[in-house]
Amino acid sequence: MGPGAAAKYGAVAVIVRSLTSALDDYPHTGNTNYGNNPKIPAAAISTIAANKLSELLKSKVAQPVQFYLKDNCQMLPDVLSYNVVGEIKGTENNNKYITIGGHLDSWDLAEGAHDDGTGVMQSAEVLRIFKALSYKPKNNIRAVFFMNEENGHKGGTKYAELAAQNHENHIAAIETDEGGFTPRGFSFDGVNPALVQKVNVQWKKLLEPYEVDHLIPGGSGTDIEPLKSQVPSVILIGFRPDSQRYFDIHHTPNDIFENVNKRELELGAASIASLVYLIDQHGLSL
Amino acid sequence: MGPGAAAKYGAVAVIVRSLTSALDDYPHTGNTNYGNNPKIPAAAISTIAANKLSELLKSKVAQPVQFYLKDNCQMLPDVLSYNVVGEIKGTENNNKYITIGGHLDSWDLAEGAHDDGTGVMQSAEVLRIFKALSYKPKNNIRAVFFMNEENGHKGGTKYAELAAQNHENHIAAIETDEGGFTPRGFSFDGVNPALVQKVNVQWKKLLEPYEVDHLIPGGSGTDIEPLKSQVPSVILIGFRPDSQRYFDIHHTPNDIFENVNKRELELGAASIASLVYLIDQHGLSL
Repeated sequence: MGPGAAAKYGAVAVIVRSLTSALDDYPHTGNTNYGNNPKIPAAAISTIAANKLSELLKSKVAQPVQFYLKDNCQMLPDVLSYNVVGEIKGTENNNKYITIGGHLDSWDLAEGAHDDGTGVMQSAEVLRIFKALSYKPKNNIRAVFFMNEENGHKGGTKYAELAAQNHENHIAAIETDEGGFTPRGFSFDGVNPALVQKVNVQWKKLLEPYEVDHLIPGGSGTDIEPLKSQVPSVILIGFRPDSQRYFDIHHTPNDIFENVNKRELELGAASIASLVYLIDQHGLSL
Repeated sequence: MGPGAAAKYGAVAVIVRSLTSALDDYPHTGNTNYGNNPKIPAAAISTIAANKLSELLKSKVAQPVQFYLKDNCQMLPDVLSYNVVGEIKGTENNNKYITIGGHLDSWDLAEGAHDDGTGVMQSAEVLRIFKALSYKPKNNIRAVFFMNEENGHKGGTKYAELAAQNHENHIAAIETDEGGFTPRGFSFDGVNPALVQKVNVQWKKLLEPYEVDHLIPGGSGTDIEPLKSQVPSVILIGFRPDSQRYFDIHHTPNDIFENVNKRELELGAASIASLVYLIDQHGLSL
């Protein structure tokens, strides 16, 4: 929102220092929300470039500093695209659903490996694990690859609309969109604190040996959030991996396949599968 | 110990597949213990090379497979080297010590960045943090850079000998030698389970918001272990970071500075400093 705010005070363009604790040459992209302000050019530069610019501005020798900015960005019209949904049918509750999802779209400056290729693969992997174990869930288990998370989350909105329209009773929805790093736990979004307490009493001990035992109140994810208003009974859950490296990678040219660790990715999928199993077997209510 | 065991059965040399879950081209080094068996040549190859060799051995076309191994390894005589010790004097207990250590030596196929450059830097960083905060500890706080961990741990042995000789009463010794990754907790080595229980009751809540709250029984480290026999009152503690990537790096040409994440390294040092502060303030006994 910075560029819009700056425009109000007469700025002709805005340069943003990329938000990362790493000192590197990767500028970060992301959404710009101008509100009703003039749409002046806005660009993020890398932390190394920002330091250089800052030094130049402070230097006595380099004055006056000239900054040449040419910006070709534009918003193109929306085009038709789709969510992708895979499902294992439940053996007992044919109208109850547990959904696991990530998103298919990504910013175009990289592959979107962690944001959110890993989430998509983990969602699919939960179903693969259940098939490999010949586990027959009581409830329908869905892996959803959401479309358009980064640019308006129309996929998540449509999914929630259809869930309501088709009277699909979602017990829980889990989103994995914080990177494919070592799993640490799960956060429960806007639920009764007593439920978080109950989950801790019942399941923390089971997850502790794997160090995936941080079961806390917190956010879930952009794609599943629209379910909240459409399917009031749903419990929204965010998968929480180790986040320390995420913003060195997120929305940068550095978000590539080589920066995903296979073992960490698989541990995350196994953790989500474990939670889905527990919910499927024991439910998730007070 | 494999090569010695194989030699007993007539092996003329041994090739070991490197122990990692990564599929890469980095052979791992490490100690070989022949016991009283003939010292036949032994080498580790990378997982990619091991897969290739395995395929060749199974292939009908490639028979017979010839493997040419030339090994120049030799053990040179020991030379004089030193531990490095830094200390902040305690304000109350002038003969009580809390020691934090890592080791200076590393295998020569890489920089030893994670094994154990990060441990050495974290040990120094605990003292720097205390100085930066103007914290005056009650007890003497020592950072020890141990020598010769990889090849006989003579530095750790000598440190323990001198501690006993000088009647230094070590309350606790903490070793950081499992990589400079995101901190997860601490393991308490061979202590009364009631003490681990007490530490959890008193301190787990303080460490939980930072997710450094796994306070469990377990190992400590090679360098501080000799203290156990010399200073019976000492509590040995191992710093436990996220370990998932460690054996992709450990003892390989991949153990380089570029593979250390600055933020994760610093979080580890801050966690160790926090534990040292708690021990310094409240002691560590039943």
